[in-house]
Amino acid sequence: MIDVVLIGAGNVATHLAIGLHKRGIHIRQIFSRTTTSAQLLAEQVGATFTSSKSAIYTDASLYICSVKDSEISTVLTNIDFHNKLLIHTAGSVALDILAPFSANYGVLYPLQTFSKSKPINWEQCNLFIEANNEKNAEFILQIASLLSTKVQIIDSEKRKNLHIAAVFACNFTNHLYTLASELMLGSGANFNDLLPLIEETTNKLCTLSPYEAQTGPAVRQDTNIVAEHIAQLAKTDINKATIYALLSRNIMQTHKMKNKE
Amino acid sequence: MIDVVLIGAGNVATHLAIGLHKRGIHIRQIFSRTTTSAQLLAEQVGATFTSSKSAIYTDASLYICSVKDSEISTVLTNIDFHNKLLIHTAGSVALDILAPFSANYGVLYPLQTFSKSKPINWEQCNLFIEANNEKNAEFILQIASLLSTKVQIIDSEKRKNLHIAAVFACNFTNHLYTLASELMLGSGANFNDLLPLIEETTNKLCTLSPYEAQTGPAVRQDTNIVAEHIAQLAKTDINKATIYALLSRNIMQTHKMKNKE
Repeated sequence: MIDVVLIGAGNVATHLAIGLHKRGIHIRQIFSRTTTSAQLLAEQVGATFTSSKSAIYTDASLYICSVKDSEISTVLTNIDFHNKLLIHTAGSVALDILAPFSANYGVLYPLQTFSKSKPINWEQCNLFIEANNEKNAEFILQIASLLSTKVQIIDSEKRKNLHIAAVFACNFTNHLYTLASELMLGSGANFNDLLPLIEETTNKLCTLSPYEAQTGPAVRQDTNIVAEHIAQLAKTDINKATIYALLSRNIMQTHKMKNKE
Repeated sequence: MIDVVLIGAGNVATHLAIGLHKRGIHIRQIFSRTTTSAQLLAEQVGATFTSSKSAIYTDASLYICSVKDSEISTVLTNIDFHNKLLIHTAGSVALDILAPFSANYGVLYPLQTFSKSKPINWEQCNLFIEANNEKNAEFILQIASLLSTKVQIIDSEKRKNLHIAAVFACNFTNHLYTLASELMLGSGANFNDLLPLIEETTNKLCTLSPYEAQTGPAVRQDTNIVAEHIAQLAKTDINKATIYALLSRNIMQTHKMKNKE
C-alpha cells in the first residue's frame, strides 16, 4: 500500500492530504514545525502528527514537502529520507533543490489557488510533474492521476514561466478585486454588484482570447477618461493611481496596433 | 408604444438594441457616423439606419446615446431632440453633459463588459440609472427593468467611482490574462491550462472576500521568489517586470498587517 508523509500543513499540504486521503491513499503522518497545524490536518485525514524531525517515519512510500518556497531547504535539513521518494509542490523552485536530501526526488505542481477554508475540485486542476529519473516520474504520475486526468510532465524552467503566468492570472487579478472592493466603498453600491461583471469577464475567455475580449477606456484610447480616473484616485490613494496609470499605459501600448488598423 | 432611436452602433449600443428589441421595445432607427455599422445593427433589430444627423427621427420616445465617452458632445451637436428624453450609457460621464441637448435627460449605465461577438445575459447585469427629474427617472427605470431586476439609482459622482472599480475588476484583470497568455508561450503549456485556476479565483469570491482569498508569493512575503520572477521577466520584457514589481509591492503592503498578527 502507498503511504505518504506530509511535510508542511499549510494551504497546499492541507488540500493535497485531503484529496489523496479521499482517493484511498494512506496519509500516515503530518510533520509541521507548528504542532497545532500538524494536529489539525492530521485529524482530518486520520494521520499521526509530529513537530520533531527525528520522529518522522523513515519507511513511507512518498514524502511530500509543501512549505513556503523559501523554507524548503531549511525544513528538509536534518531529516534522513533513506533515499525514499521526496517531492515538492512549488511552481518556481527547481527540481534539484531536493538532490541533497534523497537519491529519488521530483515535483508535483498544482496550477491552482488554495485557501484552507475552501474545498478544491482536484479533477479540474492541471498538475505539472517532474522527476530525477523515469521510474520516479512514473510513480508521481500514478499519484497525480488519482487526483486529476490533467497531468503533464514539464521541466523546472518551463514550470517557472507557468508559475509567473499564474501569478498574473490569479494572484494579481485577485488583488485587483481587493482594490475594486475598496473603491466600491465610496460608490454607494456593494462589491457583490461587481460579481456579474467579473463572471462575464472570465466567461468571455471560453470564446474569445483575452486580447480580443479587452474593453474599457484604455483600449478605446480614451485618454480623457483615463486621465480623469487617475486624477480622481490620486486625491485619496496614490498607489491605486499609480497602478491605474501603469496598467492603462500597458493596455494602450499592447492594443495600439489594433486601433490603427 | 415606446420606440427608441440609438445613437451609436458600438458594443454597448449593439447589445442594448438587441436586448430591448427582444423585450418588445421598438428600435426604430440606428444612427452612426459609419453607415456600415449602422446598417449592420439595424438589420439585427428591424430598424432603419442613417449616418445623417438631419435624418434622425424627431418624435421617438427615447434617444439612447452609446458612443465613446469623449465623443458624446460632438456626436449630439446639431441634433434637435425636441426635448424628448435623451440618455447616455457611460460610467464616467456626468449627467449634465446632456443638458445642452434636451430638457429631459438621464443615464442608464450597465455595469458589464460588452464584446460584439458575445451575447450578453441582461438579467445578470446591474444597471445604474440617473435622471434630471423624477418623471424621467421613472421612465428610465421602466425601460431598465425590462432588461434586469437589478436596477439602482445612483448619482454621477458615485457612478464614476463604480466605473473606476469596474475598470480594476474587469478591464485590468482581463489585460493581466493577456499578459499571462503571452507568458504561457514560453512555458510549453497552453493558455487554456490556466482556465481552471482563473475559474477557481473568481469562484472564491462567492465565499471569501478577495482580501481573505489572496494567495501567491507576494502575500506570503516571499521576497526571494518575487525578486526571481522580476529578474526572469526583466530579461525579455521590462513592462511585465514593472507591472509584476508594482502589484507585488502593493499586495505586500496591503497584507503586511495580517502577516504580522
